[in-house]
Amino acid sequence: MIGNFIYNTPTKLFFGKDSINGLPEVVGQYGKNVLLTYGGGSIKKMGLYDKVKELLKDFNIVELSGIEPNPKYDPSVITGAKLCKENNIDVILAVGGGSVLDCSKAISVCSLYDGEGWDLISGKVKATKSIPVVDIITLAATGSEYDAGCVISNTAINDKRGYVDGILYPVASFLDPQYTFSVSKWQTACGTADAINHVLEQFFAKPNNAFNDGFMISAIRSLMKNVKIALENPSDYDARSELMYVCTLACNGIMSNGSGYSGWPMHSIEHALSAYFDITHGAGLAIITPRWMKEILSENTVERFVTLGKLLFGFDSMPDFDMANKVIDEFYTFFESIGIPMHLGELGVKVDKIEEMADHILENDNTSNEWMYAPLDKDALIHILTESM
Amino acid sequence: MIGNFIYNTPTKLFFGKDSINGLPEVVGQYGKNVLLTYGGGSIKKMGLYDKVKELLKDFNIVELSGIEPNPKYDPSVITGAKLCKENNIDVILAVGGGSVLDCSKAISVCSLYDGEGWDLISGKVKATKSIPVVDIITLAATGSEYDAGCVISNTAINDKRGYVDGILYPVASFLDPQYTFSVSKWQTACGTADAINHVLEQFFAKPNNAFNDGFMISAIRSLMKNVKIALENPSDYDARSELMYVCTLACNGIMSNGSGYSGWPMHSIEHALSAYFDITHGAGLAIITPRWMKEILSENTVERFVTLGKLLFGFDSMPDFDMANKVIDEFYTFFESIGIPMHLGELGVKVDKIEEMADHILENDNTSNEWMYAPLDKDALIHILTESM
Repeated sequence: MIGNFIYNTPTKLFFGKDSINGLPEVVGQYGKNVLLTYGGGSIKKMGLYDKVKELLKDFNIVELSGIEPNPKYDPSVITGAKLCKENNIDVILAVGGGSVLDCSKAISVCSLYDGEGWDLISGKVKATKSIPVVDIITLAATGSEYDAGCVISNTAINDKRGYVDGILYPVASFLDPQYTFSVSKWQTACGTADAINHVLEQFFAKPNNAFNDGFMISAIRSLMKNVKIALENPSDYDARSELMYVCTLACNGIMSNGSGYSGWPMHSIEHALSAYFDITHGAGLAIITPRWMKEILSENTVERFVTLGKLLFGFDSMPDFDMANKVIDEFYTFFESIGIPMHLGELGVKVDKIEEMADHILENDNTSNEWMYAPLDKDALIHILTESM
Repeated sequence: MIGNFIYNTPTKLFFGKDSINGLPEVVGQYGKNVLLTYGGGSIKKMGLYDKVKELLKDFNIVELSGIEPNPKYDPSVITGAKLCKENNIDVILAVGGGSVLDCSKAISVCSLYDGEGWDLISGKVKATKSIPVVDIITLAATGSEYDAGCVISNTAINDKRGYVDGILYPVASFLDPQYTFSVSKWQTACGTADAINHVLEQFFAKPNNAFNDGFMISAIRSLMKNVKIALENPSDYDARSELMYVCTLACNGIMSNGSGYSGWPMHSIEHALSAYFDITHGAGLAIITPRWMKEILSENTVERFVTLGKLLFGFDSMPDFDMANKVIDEFYTFFESIGIPMHLGELGVKVDKIEEMADHILENDNTSNEWMYAPLDKDALIHILTESM
């Protein structure tokens, strides 16, 4: 059954080799004053910074660099919003991975708001205006380039928020797989784990349907296959292009139109982990995934595991719970095989913070809501986190 | 490999039970003067006409009814364009199947053009302005509600043209599966055959990739399964909803982003058939499909058949050409099983027009272009048509 939904993605995708040559025409539609946002030096190392500056030589460019992974409200969003106001910015150009883009989306609304920007991000006030955001994505991972969300950390209050609003869609996303060749093995693995988790968060929901199942399983299969090729040969265009495209679709919602909404519980847990310990998002998700699966496996949910077992892993028939456990083992082994340490302790997470994090999750995302596909109370959260250590 | 592409679908989808209650708000964004377009009396019989009039009681409505299957430039498009000019129409509301919507799309550009409208449709002149089109779709089939194309017949010159331009996307599409419950068995079968063919036209292309393959095969599988349920029980909401949604995506292009473009040869052939004999589009496509497959089967193309055999039909390994022929047989048997007569003669097509139609196809669509996935010269076209008789 396809349930009721409303769907619209205004973002225009420019995908492929040398696609960024179309940048001046697209950016020019919005004005001459550009805020160029990026992270560390990687876009300079790969020559992308110079290329962008050359393409936009007729524009007025103001720069905001040094945007962190798990981008921070203070200083990055606040500084960016200030730069926009001071320089009469017409369009923000984000060059980098999901963190740079997420930060830029937050800037796009905060810069046109006179109050405290965090009120928009935390959902206290609804944004009504934004500066158009264009992006060049250099990491196949979050799918921020084709979604209406951003995740921002507020370290002052140990908070990490997923902020979702139609106003946050980029107007255009440029995706050239060549710019992902230099992504490290670690980031390649973590980005892929992130995207796989995006699909799983949508897959474990009710109602569901065979069409979306097939679409989502094709996505997971593609990610699992191509990440191995890219880890072996980072410059394999075919693998990098498929990773990049599937990551782009994975967080957009098109794979689960008309399916139920699960509440994205693994992301709720991971946001707490990142807020407390600043770990890499995709790694946190990979570690949590099999533990969360074990926790929610029940008569109510076993059908989802069996569908994965048959269609994704090609398992022959066996008792449902045996197959479910085999599916969970497969994910564990897969994440391990792409180089992710499968214990939170290895990433610096401390066991004595587990209870506090569980409280934090319930307070911020209420994973125990009854409408959720598989509600998680405090005990369940503590159990998942403890098993993940 | 995901090849280069640009993708953007501006249309907003409102899907599900009673979704049309959102109509006044959406239509109201564009103005008060509405051209309401529809076909025969079916929307009156099912109560949709009254429902729409009630929802839009505060609007000024001008009606264009009697739009034909295989909609005609003269009189429908010409009349509609005249009505728009005379009544200062702000927005066109198409209620019905793909023909009504296609006609409305053509009206939307012709009404703002001072020259001969056919020059836009035939591609001689590029349209620069259009009236917004909103639709309520009552037939799962063409996917016109989510694409940028329309197919219009010009009977005066035996021509049927597929006209594609980004300007033709509807601004909003309302899809309530309940309004497809009363669709006849014949139209249900033909609509599904049309959508299956849309996917196949995209599937038989190079380059291709495993992700899109999985997406497309999930679509074909869903269509084949749910049409049988809907034929048995026309009011099965689950089946009707999945048919409706998959048909909507099937012609949009999202399933083949980054795949090669085949040139849609089966549609080229069918457009000639419909132009000469006014047969039902989906039936023509169903009849042509297995004959076209037999014609193009070669060392170059056999891999596509084998992929269908393994992933769609679950065949075990066997020699490639044996599997290909088995796939072709499966499609033939399937179309026959949903009630489509599998010979063109049964639909009134005359064998003595075959050569003329082959010339017409080559002249209008040039199916022998070398860039095509499997070029068809005159002999090949004649062979396909003769085998289809």
